[in-house]
Amino acid sequence: MYTLYYSKGSSALAPHILALELGVDLALVEVPIPQGAHQAPEFLARNPKGRVPLLDTPEGSLTENPAILEYLAARHPQRGLLPEGHLAQARARELCAYLCAAAHIAFAHKLRGKRWAQDPVALADMQKYVPQNLTECATYLETTLPLGPWALGADYSFCDPYLYVFARWLDAAGVSIDPFPKLAAHKLAMLARPATQAALAAQEIQE
Amino acid sequence: MYTLYYSKGSSALAPHILALELGVDLALVEVPIPQGAHQAPEFLARNPKGRVPLLDTPEGSLTENPAILEYLAARHPQRGLLPEGHLAQARARELCAYLCAAAHIAFAHKLRGKRWAQDPVALADMQKYVPQNLTECATYLETTLPLGPWALGADYSFCDPYLYVFARWLDAAGVSIDPFPKLAAHKLAMLARPATQAALAAQEIQE
Ligand SMILES: N[C@@H](CCC(=O)N[C@@H](CS)C(=O)NCC(=O)O)C(=O)O
Ligand SMILES: N[C@@H](CCC(=O)N[C@@H](CS)C(=O)NCC(=O)O)C(=O)O
Repeated sequence: MYTLYYSKGSSALAPHILALELGVDLALVEVPIPQGAHQAPEFLARNPKGRVPLLDTPEGSLTENPAILEYLAARHPQRGLLPEGHLAQARARELCAYLCAAAHIAFAHKLRGKRWAQDPVALADMQKYVPQNLTECATYLETTLPLGPWALGADYSFCDPYLYVFARWLDAAGVSIDPFPKLAAHKLAMLARPATQAALAAQEIQE
Repeated sequence: MYTLYYSKGSSALAPHILALELGVDLALVEVPIPQGAHQAPEFLARNPKGRVPLLDTPEGSLTENPAILEYLAARHPQRGLLPEGHLAQARARELCAYLCAAAHIAFAHKLRGKRWAQDPVALADMQKYVPQNLTECATYLETTLPLGPWALGADYSFCDPYLYVFARWLDAAGVSIDPFPKLAAHKLAMLARPATQAALAAQEIQE
């Protein structure tokens, strides 16, 4: 039994989709960021970072998408969503680290600039470069990932829901995915999966 | 045989130290960032991200500290630097993701603000909050990590060289480590290890 703390449409959508792919027993707790619920004392007691996703597992609570995603895939290996072999696993972690530290951060400068600056001029200037920076990330991913059709090649893995969330960041930043045909095909392939559809429906959000 | 592309004192110090701990056959290629070598066409051909660390392995090239560090520990398990068990490995990945996406990014706003903004007002304002943001990271790490004495508890793991690099970011940002006794003890314990000393000597840098 797992409990996922999420805010609608946040990056917690990635472990949400993955948990449904794995068919695990999942409870959801909404922590609506727009209403500041992630800064409420009850949530900070669970996760002092004040962020989602947070996943309660039978062994303890976990934060950070790369750690949560691989943990779920590794704990439920029968579904085969953990790549096999040292290099294949390293490639998965390389992609997750890039999505977490480059792509997510590029996107976060749109609405979360106050993490790093306060001056309104700074916040506006940060926002200005978000589309360009996400375009750079999309170019990198489109030209370097196997994407055939899944992120790491022929097999769906724990990275795919995270890459789908990246496509949503593009959209939220007003960057068209069309110039990136492999990423666009990946997004469509994700949307065709029942687990993706069920997670979107459970969060009451659109693709 | 591995080849590590590094710039002196960069985060590539983490895999450098780890490789020496593991006793693997390591070649070093300096890519001096201050001279712009990371943007030279030859390096971009190897790593289109234009970043270090980059590690050439017998199986292929790898980027991203979390992926490189765990790969090395997993490929050379006899040294026991890969934690055992699903949760323990998830905790290691959780720490690496935090160091990569929160701590390293907080530090990067000091010298690499141009990734996210261009206006001089924005760049100056970003720099202003770096010490405060790194202090927040240090507080989080000090109060949540086992640190007894190693990052994840009693056993040295592939996370420790990365946490040592975090201590160096504090120093470079002018944040004293003294108010964080567990982190300070970790730094001293790292400096007492021959592998740390050998990596610093090889890069011709100080603690
Ligand atoms: N590195 C973390 C980032 C988590 C994160 O920043 N989540 C966002 C939602 S996508 C959040 O909680 N933001 C609230 C805030 O920044 O205050 C991860 O990958 O899990
Ligand atoms: N997420 C990457 C970050 C790599 C990174 O940003 N490295 C810095 C040196 S510590 C770099 O190459 N900077 C050059 C630049 O930003 O142009 C990792 O953890 O490996």
